[in-house]
Amino acid sequence: MASRYPLAPSLARLAGRRSISIAAAGRIRSHGQAPLAATARCFSSSRPRPLQQTPSQRVKLTSETYPDIKRDSRFAPLTQEHVAYFRGIIGSDSAVIDGVTNESAADDIEPFNSDWMGKYRGQCKLVLKPGSTEEVSKILKYCNDNLLAVVPQGGNTGLVGGSVPVFDEIVINLSRMNQIVEFDEVSGALVVGAGCILEVADQFLATKGYIFPLDLGAKGSCQIGGNLSTNAGGLRLLRYGSLHGSTLGIEAVLADGTIVDDLCKLRKNNTGYDLKQLFIGAEGTIGIITKASIQCPQRSAAQNVAFFGLESFDKVQQAFREAKGQLSEILSAFELMDESSQALVGEVTENRRPLEGKYPFYCLIETSGSNADHDSEKLGAFLEDVMEKGIVSDGTLAQDETQIKALWAWREGIAEALGHLGGVYKYDVSIPLQEMYQLVEDTKARIDAAGLLGDTDEHPVRDVIGYGHMGDSNLHLNVSTRRFDKRVEQCLEPFIYEWIEKRQGSISAEHGLGLQKKNYIGYSRNATTIGLMKGLKTHFDPKGILNPYKYI
Amino acid sequence: MASRYPLAPSLARLAGRRSISIAAAGRIRSHGQAPLAATARCFSSSRPRPLQQTPSQRVKLTSETYPDIKRDSRFAPLTQEHVAYFRGIIGSDSAVIDGVTNESAADDIEPFNSDWMGKYRGQCKLVLKPGSTEEVSKILKYCNDNLLAVVPQGGNTGLVGGSVPVFDEIVINLSRMNQIVEFDEVSGALVVGAGCILEVADQFLATKGYIFPLDLGAKGSCQIGGNLSTNAGGLRLLRYGSLHGSTLGIEAVLADGTIVDDLCKLRKNNTGYDLKQLFIGAEGTIGIITKASIQCPQRSAAQNVAFFGLESFDKVQQAFREAKGQLSEILSAFELMDESSQALVGEVTENRRPLEGKYPFYCLIETSGSNADHDSEKLGAFLEDVMEKGIVSDGTLAQDETQIKALWAWREGIAEALGHLGGVYKYDVSIPLQEMYQLVEDTKARIDAAGLLGDTDEHPVRDVIGYGHMGDSNLHLNVSTRRFDKRVEQCLEPFIYEWIEKRQGSISAEHGLGLQKKNYIGYSRNATTIGLMKGLKTHFDPKGILNPYKYI
Repeated sequence: MASRYPLAPSLARLAGRRSISIAAAGRIRSHGQAPLAATARCFSSSRPRPLQQTPSQRVKLTSETYPDIKRDSRFAPLTQEHVAYFRGIIGSDSAVIDGVTNESAADDIEPFNSDWMGKYRGQCKLVLKPGSTEEVSKILKYCNDNLLAVVPQGGNTGLVGGSVPVFDEIVINLSRMNQIVEFDEVSGALVVGAGCILEVADQFLATKGYIFPLDLGAKGSCQIGGNLSTNAGGLRLLRYGSLHGSTLGIEAVLADGTIVDDLCKLRKNNTGYDLKQLFIGAEGTIGIITKASIQCPQRSAAQNVAFFGLESFDKVQQAFREAKGQLSEILSAFELMDESSQALVGEVTENRRPLEGKYPFYCLIETSGSNADHDSEKLGAFLEDVMEKGIVSDGTLAQDETQIKALWAWREGIAEALGHLGGVYKYDVSIPLQEMYQLVEDTKARIDAAGLLGDTDEHPVRDVIGYGHMGDSNLHLNVSTRRFDKRVEQCLEPFIYEWIEKRQGSISAEHGLGLQKKNYIGYSRNATTIGLMKGLKTHFDPKGILNPYKYI
Repeated sequence: MASRYPLAPSLARLAGRRSISIAAAGRIRSHGQAPLAATARCFSSSRPRPLQQTPSQRVKLTSETYPDIKRDSRFAPLTQEHVAYFRGIIGSDSAVIDGVTNESAADDIEPFNSDWMGKYRGQCKLVLKPGSTEEVSKILKYCNDNLLAVVPQGGNTGLVGGSVPVFDEIVINLSRMNQIVEFDEVSGALVVGAGCILEVADQFLATKGYIFPLDLGAKGSCQIGGNLSTNAGGLRLLRYGSLHGSTLGIEAVLADGTIVDDLCKLRKNNTGYDLKQLFIGAEGTIGIITKASIQCPQRSAAQNVAFFGLESFDKVQQAFREAKGQLSEILSAFELMDESSQALVGEVTENRRPLEGKYPFYCLIETSGSNADHDSEKLGAFLEDVMEKGIVSDGTLAQDETQIKALWAWREGIAEALGHLGGVYKYDVSIPLQEMYQLVEDTKARIDAAGLLGDTDEHPVRDVIGYGHMGDSNLHLNVSTRRFDKRVEQCLEPFIYEWIEKRQGSISAEHGLGLQKKNYIGYSRNATTIGLMKGLKTHFDPKGILNPYKYI
């Protein structure tokens, strides 16, 4: 590596994956005791858990929170006869029934009625857990014939209320359809049941030298069918692309019970409309995905994670450009966190911060490649370059797997830390990169001007926090509150949506529409497009039994 | 690079991009006079040209070749009044008219009526070249209202007759809508008019340090709208994925003139059904794509191309596995060519073959990365490894840009070389990798057994040739003939389609359905799926004016 930079010899240590910290003055020093080893209190961010402050028992019914949403009277109420029919299909052990028959299972049914954030709560009396595509088909045919509304449900880790009922819709839970059906070790094509947990699939793939092309915080609970239905984006979309690109095939069941077998395992198949794409991101509104075939990339032998502090969002953008250029094919994540988000994680976990100083912004960069020496050299050269140019003020590099996890916890732990401190207004948005963080500043200024933001208890808002996937221009804006307050909501909406509309952003980058954003789609889609979507919904589900009251 | 292999020191020369040839015995030697420099007679494979043997004047009308296809009598015949209306919209200079009015333009209209292979010939009397989306909208609204059938046409480089009329359909040619609308240098999002030529877009991107995520032989003529409409796969799908993954947004006009503005420039936008996906690969049957927004990757600073000889298809598969594992993130193409294909290119171009010996199979491997030294080291280690293991028998590595092009010409020149020698039955198929080449052997054996294959003139078939995109499991099977012969066709079909169906392959990997494969879709798609596709076609184009007689 040719370099005129005096620190080049020290950077050679990178090749040994030693932990280094790059000070603002351009000096490199080893951590004495690697602070990142202290991971005991880091979050296990692999699965969302219900927040202590909001046990589902205390969550208001969705029908009470949104009194304007009325139960569609076309849908039949559930009867004992219906329940008996379903039991005949899937067996008694695979149904959870509460109150339709003389059985009571209030506690058992509660987790299927509520989301993990404790924001939505339905009144479902029947949860069905089919074990096969044929069972899903029989259930849907019967529901369609008898006008029974249903909610398809995977790991129920969604953030917009898409996977829980609003009223008494029947939950069709896919968790029993969790098979890894087949894997082609030459092509990397994986076929799984929709109920397969993402982490289970990824761990299986690890034994074969492959990786699932999607990774996200909820991987320990979320299911692949749900990932597809919400077009989950996650942490490494920058590298592996979206599920629209990596899904080879889908098997799904339509509202009338028709089984659509489009479970192609080929990378190229130009024989007609690419139907499977419609189911990806459709949130279960036009059919229930029962199996999927996914193109999985090679698992990288080497992984590095660096964590930087930066003085401005301009510098964050510069660092991103340099990382794209210099790390190019090995760059697998470029995540953004602001100081508020990191202070919060520090406060909740009581862990020592990765860097000694405080900076307005932090970035986490991950590289994944086939050659550890090459990757370290590239990352070393990149670090040297961004330090020399004054783009990055300080940084640290994980020296082993434990430290990699610890650094990731400062990014992945934000959502959970926020939940520990009270209610949160969450916005998951895409904004052209140049203005991505401006939304956080403008929102904060607006709330402050309204007198709602402060350190003391009379202010409902604790802080306005921004973090997200810089590589995808995807910001998670979080307004952390001491308590929910109508004035805060009025201050935020439609302000935020209008702000995004002006910049041609998306009001839902990766979380989807669900119940939460159904009424706001117009800020990101025009009337023609929405009209076409409604036409497609009617085309595929003319009776509207699939996941009603949501989406569009 | 740690290695116990005695050749390691010699492989270091790779870092200097010197041309080396690796002999079967594991010896490395420099080419004395680099044979690849003799590129004068290599094909310029950047665009397809009509074959000399088949000037369009002599091509049979499609209606004569396929007498079973009848003109749909619902469609109105073109009148002077129609022509006058269209002229009013787009101006006289933007229409080619032959025989409807008192104008005659037989020569001018011919290229729009025929495909470049000389297989299909329509009877269109009017070509319209709109200059804006609004003009396309007005044209389609009028056509829909007046029941005039249309054929959307881009660069007309397709292989299945999808972009030329069958009868008197009006051609809507997008070539004037060729603007590069905007490019975001931070995100890599490119917005272009549908008529923009692929190579023009890529050359523009090169000046910005980016690359178009699609590359194919016809890049000098094909248009991005056509690429999207056919879901073109091409040479680097292995690395950059399909257009379903890299297309961010589309603007399209529906049959009734409705403009669908879904020209999103964001990587993540989960607000409703991903409508744009339906237009990708729809071959202009549900709307005409007028603009597109594409996510473009960083252009790699370093590119290497190696060319190998191998003794069996088993060894080709082993080489592919090793390349995926060892070259991983820098592997950008893995192409397969059999000896027949290479002998043919040699015969037609009279160029010296890249390797001295003959082998049953050849592979072209391309790497693209950000660091030339690292890439060379990885490729060197890979070469050493596959030589040492006896997987590869001989190989050569391009030492400069000229040699890279020359090696690629041995792969990209096959289609054109085939055309120079007579008629060709072409099949573009996907087959699970293990059996990919077996189809060539089985087809050859079958033709031979029927007495149709031989070196002398009484045999209609010269040779059966296989090549393609190994990385995508995509085989191009070509039956090279001295003359078209019904017995050959009967020998090939439905044999080939049935062979593919048994292996759950695709009868059209990347070329699409067009007119050629409309009737064979059932070999790759089941009745339910085809039924859904037909339903969608009717939903979007109830009068069926868009590209009739084709697709499904």
